[in-house]
Amino acid sequence: MVIVMSSHATEADVTVITQHVESLGLQAHPIIGVERIVIGVIGDERLIQKDQLSLLPHVETVIPILKPYKLASREFKPNDSVIDVAGVRVGGKEIVTIAGPCSVETEEQLLATATAVKQAGAKLLRGGAYKPRTSPYAFQGLGEDGLKLLMKAKEQTGLGIVTEVMETADVELVAEYADLLQVGARNMQNTRLLRSLGKVKKPILLKRNFSATLNEFLMSAEYILSAGNNNVILCERGIRTFVEYTRNTLDLNVIPAVKQLSHLPIIVDPSHGTGRHDFVLPLSRAAIAAGADGLIIEVHPDPAKAFSDGEQSLTLEAFQSLMNEVSVISKAMGRQ
Amino acid sequence: MVIVMSSHATEADVTVITQHVESLGLQAHPIIGVERIVIGVIGDERLIQKDQLSLLPHVETVIPILKPYKLASREFKPNDSVIDVAGVRVGGKEIVTIAGPCSVETEEQLLATATAVKQAGAKLLRGGAYKPRTSPYAFQGLGEDGLKLLMKAKEQTGLGIVTEVMETADVELVAEYADLLQVGARNMQNTRLLRSLGKVKKPILLKRNFSATLNEFLMSAEYILSAGNNNVILCERGIRTFVEYTRNTLDLNVIPAVKQLSHLPIIVDPSHGTGRHDFVLPLSRAAIAAGADGLIIEVHPDPAKAFSDGEQSLTLEAFQSLMNEVSVISKAMGRQ
Amino acid sequence: MVIVMSSHATEADVTVITQHVESLGLQAHPIIGVERIVIGVIGDERLIQKDQLSLLPHVETVIPILKPYKLASREFKPNDSVIDVAGVRVGGKEIVTIAGPCSVETEEQLLATATAVKQAGAKLLRGGAYKPRTSPYAFQGLGEDGLKLLMKAKEQTGLGIVTEVMETADVELVAEYADLLQVGARNMQNTRLLRSLGKVKKPILLKRNFSATLNEFLMSAEYILSAGNNNVILCERGIRTFVEYTRNTLDLNVIPAVKQLSHLPIIVDPSHGTGRHDFVLPLSRAAIAAGADGLIIEVHPDPAKAFSDGEQSLTLEAFQSLMNEVSVISKAMGRQ
Amino acid sequence: MVIVMSSHATEADVTVITQHVESLGLQAHPIIGVERIVIGVIGDERLIQKDQLSLLPHVETVIPILKPYKLASREFKPNDSVIDVAGVRVGGKEIVTIAGPCSVETEEQLLATATAVKQAGAKLLRGGAYKPRTSPYAFQGLGEDGLKLLMKAKEQTGLGIVTEVMETADVELVAEYADLLQVGARNMQNTRLLRSLGKVKKPILLKRNFSATLNEFLMSAEYILSAGNNNVILCERGIRTFVEYTRNTLDLNVIPAVKQLSHLPIIVDPSHGTGRHDFVLPLSRAAIAAGADGLIIEVHPDPAKAFSDGEQSLTLEAFQSLMNEVSVISKAMGRQ
Repeated sequence: MVIVMSSHATEADVTVITQHVESLGLQAHPIIGVERIVIGVIGDERLIQKDQLSLLPHVETVIPILKPYKLASREFKPNDSVIDVAGVRVGGKEIVTIAGPCSVETEEQLLATATAVKQAGAKLLRGGAYKPRTSPYAFQGLGEDGLKLLMKAKEQTGLGIVTEVMETADVELVAEYADLLQVGARNMQNTRLLRSLGKVKKPILLKRNFSATLNEFLMSAEYILSAGNNNVILCERGIRTFVEYTRNTLDLNVIPAVKQLSHLPIIVDPSHGTGRHDFVLPLSRAAIAAGADGLIIEVHPDPAKAFSDGEQSLTLEAFQSLMNEVSVISKAMGRQ
Repeated sequence: MVIVMSSHATEADVTVITQHVESLGLQAHPIIGVERIVIGVIGDERLIQKDQLSLLPHVETVIPILKPYKLASREFKPNDSVIDVAGVRVGGKEIVTIAGPCSVETEEQLLATATAVKQAGAKLLRGGAYKPRTSPYAFQGLGEDGLKLLMKAKEQTGLGIVTEVMETADVELVAEYADLLQVGARNMQNTRLLRSLGKVKKPILLKRNFSATLNEFLMSAEYILSAGNNNVILCERGIRTFVEYTRNTLDLNVIPAVKQLSHLPIIVDPSHGTGRHDFVLPLSRAAIAAGADGLIIEVHPDPAKAFSDGEQSLTLEAFQSLMNEVSVISKAMGRQ
Repeated sequence: MVIVMSSHATEADVTVITQHVESLGLQAHPIIGVERIVIGVIGDERLIQKDQLSLLPHVETVIPILKPYKLASREFKPNDSVIDVAGVRVGGKEIVTIAGPCSVETEEQLLATATAVKQAGAKLLRGGAYKPRTSPYAFQGLGEDGLKLLMKAKEQTGLGIVTEVMETADVELVAEYADLLQVGARNMQNTRLLRSLGKVKKPILLKRNFSATLNEFLMSAEYILSAGNNNVILCERGIRTFVEYTRNTLDLNVIPAVKQLSHLPIIVDPSHGTGRHDFVLPLSRAAIAAGADGLIIEVHPDPAKAFSDGEQSLTLEAFQSLMNEVSVISKAMGRQ
Repeated sequence: MVIVMSSHATEADVTVITQHVESLGLQAHPIIGVERIVIGVIGDERLIQKDQLSLLPHVETVIPILKPYKLASREFKPNDSVIDVAGVRVGGKEIVTIAGPCSVETEEQLLATATAVKQAGAKLLRGGAYKPRTSPYAFQGLGEDGLKLLMKAKEQTGLGIVTEVMETADVELVAEYADLLQVGARNMQNTRLLRSLGKVKKPILLKRNFSATLNEFLMSAEYILSAGNNNVILCERGIRTFVEYTRNTLDLNVIPAVKQLSHLPIIVDPSHGTGRHDFVLPLSRAAIAAGADGLIIEVHPDPAKAFSDGEQSLTLEAFQSLMNEVSVISKAMGRQ
């Protein structure tokens, strides 16, 4: 932590600050510059609040040096984490594709999709039983009936299940059915939910909120990790910008950023990230080329009749074709 | 709803679409333009999904005409809603100020603050017992003990209580203590929470999420309204932009926008909106001048020792001074 | 400047950096922390490039401490600058309103507007002769003929003239006619134009670009100041965000930010800032309440027939009414 | 164009509008909906101003149907444009890489870089002689001396020259030396410069502004095309968002968007787009995988000593390595 004093601060003002810093159990090293005095602070800055220093008299700003997350950082764990999801390893050499409908609608729809995505090479099945919709008048999901249909699809195809959990009260129930519990973008900072997921014995798929900085994204992972669950997979699904040709702006820059700062795997959701079925293929390729560990893609037997997000869903045929095209890029990246 | 056909669409293609539209119980009126055919659709477009038309063959885009919200709209209810919070009317002629600490920390801190803000003219007391913090290592609030302290402050000062509820499981408990239940920005699209608040007999303070469009903000209000609770107060508290000199960008443009489209009152939180105590006064004045119905402001007896958000908290003296300065603007606006 | 070493840096690595820093004529003060070594650098960091240090081995980041601008800073000149524009003082106690049409269209249109805005209390007349339009097919302005009409309006009303200059080649010509030369938002970083305006003996109105940080905005002012022209007035006119109900997001937070960091006056353009005539009044009030030194407002005798930006123009009557309403706020702020 | 009437509009109000529309030489087709009347307008909406209709009484909004650009659109020219730059074809099957230093600094620096990038497979040499820098105190480029050094590098290596032109007055001079004239992001809407480039017999590299929508980007291309120069290459180089880990947010979503709407080729600048040398490789791969036609990359023999943008420059070795890695992706994409 570095404390920058305001330009008119005297050495007496600096003494007040250094004494305060030392009273907090940290060490203070003032450096007298030409235009400013700065004070280097030694000790674990995570233990104190930035505010409590920045509001002291004659302090201009306080600049943190250490990252606010610890367990999620690559410094804490230098090697890549590989997360086991129902026998599928995410974060290793293999590119893992999760596919399925936005919402579980009917048995027929789900089984047809599950069978087709499995055949095309998907390793896990996604499907929403609890749906956080913008409109109260829109389809809100089948709830537990949806979870039961997912279980049936699992029995039939062998694909592990990825599904969203929307609140703490549902965690236990969803964890009975799901192999990977998804935290949706709107819940990325639902800290109560995050902590309850820290106590679950299933891995978690944490989607980035539309306006989350990388610090905030990794701090949400830190909530889960610090509560006892080490199995977190990150997912980029688009940020909110001024751009008008996509529903969100899929931010592939986050992939090398995560790889540098964290050991956690990261996958990409080009369906929600762009909101457009015709952009899913180019952005899937780009995600893999940027270093993502996998994809999560919306697929529906008849997108024009989907209960939700049809605009961004691939048909079964389009998904098969995407898997072929993407595998060429995966190989070019030295992955499978 | 207007359906824009792609430039190569034939009249036969248009017939397919008009038949489909009519099969949904709506009427279709094609208009043959020079470069495009557009189809005007008559009927309640909220009943159908945009996707289900935009994915039909040769459709370029589908443009909704009606707003997706209904109960929150000024068309539905032309006159301003005035919400009663423990006898304080929000949305009427009077500018209402809510003040208090970010977090309830101790009895001493809370009572000192409550007494001072009441004396300065605040009408309601804010204070967080459940805190959604970015870091798992930060103070998470006193929970029910905090609610009890708020009740004590109410008994002593007569100020109604405003406090955050973070999940459905807590709604009943918080509603026992609070006069106005706050939905935090991070929970603006926690649809389960919103629906449970629709069944509560207390008014709701709905804070805008950092990346919420106005449509999304009003749709979240619509969740509460459509579940049976008409008493919703909106709150602007800053959006996420590229700007570096404030923690968020307080967006005062939303005030006339809300006033035009909705009957619900809107207040402004310049403390979170800017994240800087020295910006609270100018932006409070500006919020009132832009037409806001009230303010919610963080106040702490000793901000440098606050457990959270000290940087944006006013001292008791600074708050007294702000109330004096703002009242001059309120009067200039013909309000009290 | 503070250099943060990477976590694995040894003391020998630090020695390499301190020697390099000293070879640049600066002093280096390493501080050995628990998780990181940081090096405080003393000297004028503006003289060296951040890159040249951040790329040295084992350097994690370089954090500048000093602001990159000097002449524009309040530290350099603690008192507010008051800029004289044809006898009108901008930045003093008086709120100055600049008004007029987006584009100069005809003599009749301009003179009618000029007469009306003068009568309503505007102090300077705006009008575009050179127009930077998004579309090549849109009206591009009357050029020098427009300047001549502005001169005629000045002769008739006594109002000083504010008009845009789009490139270096036009500076001399525009400076003959204008009392205040406007740099449009799209040209805020046209550094050649900025430098040529540094040599003009007329004041400059520098509009903020849609995506400019405050550092970038003040650095553009610094270009003009450092080339010899001290008379710069800043203008906020909206930033680009995800928000959909305004053409841009008028950012009033920038007003206290500028007032804190710079001595230059700042005015607000609510016409371009919102793009909506019905939002001009509330945001004009809010701008003054936030501490702005003036307003620049688009007025047209018949907005529905304007050659440009009719949607955001006030009628002559609406402008008269706005002036009355805003003057109440100005007085409440202790200004005129 | 579709005109949406406000909810209280009567049929008489609609008649006023339809008559006005017809007086502009267009046809009007009212459709009476349940909650709104909409009017379909037939004719070339580019010829009239949206404002002139939206301000008529009882009009709620006017929704354009046609894209505002014409010559840049794929409807106008269905096949991909392939632009010849000094014998190198951009937009065809081959991925073209442009490489070189941010600024031309010295003969030695430039020739060393030119030789190395040619050997590594670059097809064109970039280098700035005129530099638009944020700070007036930073290196502003060598000007014509820089152009002469570029010419020397061309003679020695055979690489065509790509360099920026900053204002109309320089166009003739720069066009003598350059094979591809670059319009920088800050000048994307310098409409005078764009029009002067429409008269040049050299191709133009048009960089996207940080806050440009796709409409604005293509409209800037339209300025050049409509002035007579068909040879425009687009370049994505990052947009301004809230994200903190890159200098800008490189937006690869724009690639399929451009490919869908326009026939112009598009290349990507991962150096400026991310601002980080360590992100250039992953985002270069991703750009090609997303369908870009080429790359423009900053390379410097000793980035830590670069006069500008060292942080984002690759060393000669790193560039060689990047070319090898990227060519694997190019091949996987069926390109060369």
